[in-house]
Amino acid sequence: MQEISKAAWIWYPGDFELWLHKEVSIRRDERGSVIPPFWRLDSHTANVKFRKDYDLEQEEEVSLYVEGVYNIALDSRYIYGNPETFTLPAGKHHLIISVFAETVVPAIFLQGKTLSTDNTWTVSTNNHKSPQAASWIFDTPTYKPSTYRLATEEIRPLTVEKLSHTATLLDFGKETFGYVQFHELQGSGKVSLYYGESREEALATEQCETLDEVHLAEKSASQNSDSDSDSNSDSVSNSNANLFTVPNSRAFRYVQIVAEETLQIGDMTALYEYLPVNYRGRFRCSDERINTIWDTSLYTMHLTTREFFLDGIKRDRWVWSGDAYQSFLMNYYTFFDNDVCRRTLTVLRGKDPVETHINHILDYSFYWILGLYDYYLYTGDLAFVQKNADKVHTLLDFCIGRTNEEGFMEGYKDDWVFVDWSEIDNRGEVCFEQILFCRSLEIGSYFAGLFQNPELAQNYEERARQLKERIFSVFWNDEAGGLVHSRYEGKLNNHVTKYANMFAMSFGYLDEQRYESVKHKVMLNDAVQPITTPYMRFYELASLCEVGDISWVLEEIRSYWGGMLDLGATSFWETFDPTQSGVQHYDMYGRPFAKSLCHAWGASPLYLAGKHVLGIRPLTPGYETYLIEPQLGDLNWFEGAVPLPDGDIELHVSKEHIKVTAGSGTGLLRFQSATEPTADHGNIEAKGNHLYELTVLPNIVYNVRYESN
Amino acid sequence: MQEISKAAWIWYPGDFELWLHKEVSIRRDERGSVIPPFWRLDSHTANVKFRKDYDLEQEEEVSLYVEGVYNIALDSRYIYGNPETFTLPAGKHHLIISVFAETVVPAIFLQGKTLSTDNTWTVSTNNHKSPQAASWIFDTPTYKPSTYRLATEEIRPLTVEKLSHTATLLDFGKETFGYVQFHELQGSGKVSLYYGESREEALATEQCETLDEVHLAEKSASQNSDSDSDSNSDSVSNSNANLFTVPNSRAFRYVQIVAEETLQIGDMTALYEYLPVNYRGRFRCSDERINTIWDTSLYTMHLTTREFFLDGIKRDRWVWSGDAYQSFLMNYYTFFDNDVCRRTLTVLRGKDPVETHINHILDYSFYWILGLYDYYLYTGDLAFVQKNADKVHTLLDFCIGRTNEEGFMEGYKDDWVFVDWSEIDNRGEVCFEQILFCRSLEIGSYFAGLFQNPELAQNYEERARQLKERIFSVFWNDEAGGLVHSRYEGKLNNHVTKYANMFAMSFGYLDEQRYESVKHKVMLNDAVQPITTPYMRFYELASLCEVGDISWVLEEIRSYWGGMLDLGATSFWETFDPTQSGVQHYDMYGRPFAKSLCHAWGASPLYLAGKHVLGIRPLTPGYETYLIEPQLGDLNWFEGAVPLPDGDIELHVSKEHIKVTAGSGTGLLRFQSATEPTADHGNIEAKGNHLYELTVLPNIVYNVRYESN
Repeated sequence: MQEISKAAWIWYPGDFELWLHKEVSIRRDERGSVIPPFWRLDSHTANVKFRKDYDLEQEEEVSLYVEGVYNIALDSRYIYGNPETFTLPAGKHHLIISVFAETVVPAIFLQGKTLSTDNTWTVSTNNHKSPQAASWIFDTPTYKPSTYRLATEEIRPLTVEKLSHTATLLDFGKETFGYVQFHELQGSGKVSLYYGESREEALATEQCETLDEVHLAEKSASQNSDSDSDSNSDSVSNSNANLFTVPNSRAFRYVQIVAEETLQIGDMTALYEYLPVNYRGRFRCSDERINTIWDTSLYTMHLTTREFFLDGIKRDRWVWSGDAYQSFLMNYYTFFDNDVCRRTLTVLRGKDPVETHINHILDYSFYWILGLYDYYLYTGDLAFVQKNADKVHTLLDFCIGRTNEEGFMEGYKDDWVFVDWSEIDNRGEVCFEQILFCRSLEIGSYFAGLFQNPELAQNYEERARQLKERIFSVFWNDEAGGLVHSRYEGKLNNHVTKYANMFAMSFGYLDEQRYESVKHKVMLNDAVQPITTPYMRFYELASLCEVGDISWVLEEIRSYWGGMLDLGATSFWETFDPTQSGVQHYDMYGRPFAKSLCHAWGASPLYLAGKHVLGIRPLTPGYETYLIEPQLGDLNWFEGAVPLPDGDIELHVSKEHIKVTAGSGTGLLRFQSATEPTADHGNIEAKGNHLYELTVLPNIVYNVRYESN
Repeated sequence: MQEISKAAWIWYPGDFELWLHKEVSIRRDERGSVIPPFWRLDSHTANVKFRKDYDLEQEEEVSLYVEGVYNIALDSRYIYGNPETFTLPAGKHHLIISVFAETVVPAIFLQGKTLSTDNTWTVSTNNHKSPQAASWIFDTPTYKPSTYRLATEEIRPLTVEKLSHTATLLDFGKETFGYVQFHELQGSGKVSLYYGESREEALATEQCETLDEVHLAEKSASQNSDSDSDSNSDSVSNSNANLFTVPNSRAFRYVQIVAEETLQIGDMTALYEYLPVNYRGRFRCSDERINTIWDTSLYTMHLTTREFFLDGIKRDRWVWSGDAYQSFLMNYYTFFDNDVCRRTLTVLRGKDPVETHINHILDYSFYWILGLYDYYLYTGDLAFVQKNADKVHTLLDFCIGRTNEEGFMEGYKDDWVFVDWSEIDNRGEVCFEQILFCRSLEIGSYFAGLFQNPELAQNYEERARQLKERIFSVFWNDEAGGLVHSRYEGKLNNHVTKYANMFAMSFGYLDEQRYESVKHKVMLNDAVQPITTPYMRFYELASLCEVGDISWVLEEIRSYWGGMLDLGATSFWETFDPTQSGVQHYDMYGRPFAKSLCHAWGASPLYLAGKHVLGIRPLTPGYETYLIEPQLGDLNWFEGAVPLPDGDIELHVSKEHIKVTAGSGTGLLRFQSATEPTADHGNIEAKGNHLYELTVLPNIVYNVRYESN
């Protein structure tokens, strides 16, 4: 066999992500009713042209595989008949392959001895733009983009409980996701499946959120089983005789199977479906309860980290910007899977024109910009940010076009001003939104500066500066010692909430005096309306870590997340109210089992542990420089790892000893010691007030002896 | 059976047109290679929500049919199980049906006793806009939008010529379009079809532009014939035993059929496919050659008037703005089919954002705006214009964003500055483009004024005024007596061409002195570069009619269009050069049979006859007022009809007698008479210089006696 160059399936950048997002987004259903998202669902562009200008020393035979209908034009002449194999003449020529495809992404795979599809090809959606073609893991003619599926592996129920002569309850022992499989079918008949994240839900055939009904029949060895379900059935293997795989993927721990008596089912298992990731971030500490919470958080995070970062695996199974923003941050301390970040950022923003806020939520437009900034800060991937630079611009312009005379943003009719699930009045100018808007403008300015657009950078910067001034002149209340919640029809709502204050704090918008005021009068003040959702507790607890209250935060983690574990949770929930009991916990939106028991934002201990206990964060993009500022709190010791783009940081901290090593970049280890510390490498600098710093260079094991305060 | 309200399939406005356009656009192929257009091909939005707020006196059972996957929500609660029939409770409620569909248009048909899908429903693509739902002719559950097909009827070849023992040549007697059918199949084997608009093309198996290959086998009465072709095959009936319909629609007069000896074919016919239209415009005159030209033009026009106005039926089978602009004008004097106008205007403009000019051609953006104006002027359909008001705005803004410091537009890299197929230098600032741009700004201003946007109207008007001033200050050349062609890199190209001049003339941009100068020094000056394409002859001959040279124009029609008839044309061609001979006529783009022999722009005598011989044109939108200014030229008499939105104008003109009647509006009959004319109704007003005017009111037969000059 002749040696050939490495080829990949190529497509228009972003098309694969948009197509996959559309596929994923319509997999949500509720008792058989498909629930498409209520936002515009952009997909790929059907009509594209791939181009390669080549210069071959010798003529070369190439093979071409295409997803879609197509033509081949060499030097603007069609090669009729669409031959799978054809010869490219030697010399300088240009090859254009035009592809049209609606339900799959237009894509090509061409392979010759020296010339193959790769990122030296350009591609256009016939819009006068010809970026480099995109590719990913698809590297053989039959491994087409349209065949993309997550990985699966067989799992078995922990217990199989006979409920009646037709009904069986499977318990897989923990929350999971995948496809139920029936083995050794005999006879034929109808099977109903009632899924439950709780046992109660699986038993409630009239109220469980998800169910399936399939008609099965035993088959001869050469036959497929007879099924009236058609979707997705090629996504899983049905090749074994008398094995049937339910075509729909579901979230469940329990499944109640009700089969007609005319059908006998042998073994019942499931295919667990997951995104293969590396477990790079690690955390262990002297408190086993916190370790269990961290493990359960990681499992929750992995279940919701799929084709994209989903909010929850039972519901909504959608990509929400506010939810994804937290997943991004947790990912940087766990999987460091930047592919899923890019996929998620790409599909959240979708295509122009911007007609609505992302997910129709005002705050969620800003989280997208914040998320893109963090992506750059943690990964250093400038190329991806550059690809999105215009989209930052058009999104910000959409926002600017909706500011009022004072430069504030208010919710328009049909906009959802979310902030948080709680009793708050979000009419008018909500301070929290202005803080996020201001930060988004600053990021827009920073990006514009990176990409040689000083005029735009200056414009956004000036706008941000003015906005920040106005925010403090309008919303700051000296008496309350913080920012008030909102102004509606010219009247300030003097209610102080934590939302704007904690974000202003984390964005560095508070001078020292205001910082102290917000810390004591807002964040640590029990009289201020408490935050009750895990969603906003993410930021609240992070803020409390920032203000140095790590022991209080650890205690909160033990009681709130530990509270779910005490109720048997195997993954963390969408909401948790410790005052409820029994099936009350599963109720939401007026439906008894609507609550998601595996929700990404429930996994925030991952972020708190990585950023605030291990205390590791990048200072410049891609961890070129970074900070390590560990906080023991009430722990005796902890250890863990945080992934860098190139290598990891390994850290062990006890009350007397800090051990650290890093794979790349230049770190600054900052710690407090009651006595003069020592290190076996580098120089420890005293910063006053028991504070010390040590510069951490790559691939050196630093052992520091110190005395914890 | 209970009486039920009238229901229609409904969808998001524009979606059906975009979907159909995409389907039609990818039907072009060249010897088996599909040729998608080289512009962005927008399609429908997959994810939509239909909404009805209702108030029922009694509960009501309704039936629901949907194209796509969907859910039903009554007062925000899902009705699980998607029942085909369900009961709506009495009282005030809201019903939302969410539909997702990719390859067909998301559409619903709901029917109850009093409540049905109609244009009282709103629909959203989840973009915060909720326009009235659109509907058309689809009014039963099974007559779904996705089943839309043009009409067909069987036609038979005029001659069947046996070329060899395997090859047969069918001649259908004239240019046509449709699907070949084989009857009484026996045996099995491969059949090749070589289509020809000329006999030579059908015989040239290696060079003809279109061909098909099908594998056929006789079948039992209950079986369909075996075919490896899958596309479109459900578009035509294959229900007869041993009848096979070729799935691809083709343009042809001749078809060479080559069948393997193992297959016997009986009768060979075709299904002529056409858009059902009314032949409302009529024209007859004392010159039979001109009558034949008019009839052949009408047939050409009908063949290219299909789902949309196509350029040509063999090639390109695409929707081009410049070509369609002329079809619009011809349509107003023939079919007055406003559905096809709206469909064409909708798909040409597509969706925002505007990334390129329409069809990638600078001029073609302007023709779209001009075409929308004409549509309003001829039909008075303000609602459609209003639906497109934002799109006029965004297209003009795109153009304005590409003006240079002097406010002129130049072709950007990748823009096609077309003007005409001829030897002209279109680099830099082309005067013709500025004239069209100026007119487009004026139209933009007019529309903005209609829709209560005085600020925008003022902005466009001022911009147009300044542009017009600059056009004349830069491009007008007193010596040459007209506008010069262009300026490139600051240097005027003093070459005078007719393009800018004839459009400036027709837009009323020339004062009396310049008008006379352009008339004599440009339009009637043989030294000026002649226009040779039927495309631009459309405007040239119309201009010459305007300047009163109707006899010269009639002579041109006789020789140029008559020249094609003399060569056996049964429809008019894309181009015609009388100096060529034989198969030279069929050559184009370096391919021997690439020329389209049925091209819409070849039908311009329809427009010249209606607007300039019958002399009928609207003065205010929808023919509320209109002008009739007949020109006999060298004809002894003519008669004809021009459609109005409500009724027709019937006109008969001889040298002594004018007879006119109109169905609606207020007309002004203007004519010259050497002697004092008389009329049996109304008052004839003398306007001086032998010019007379008579006001024409609806439904009165006016007989005018006069003496032609």
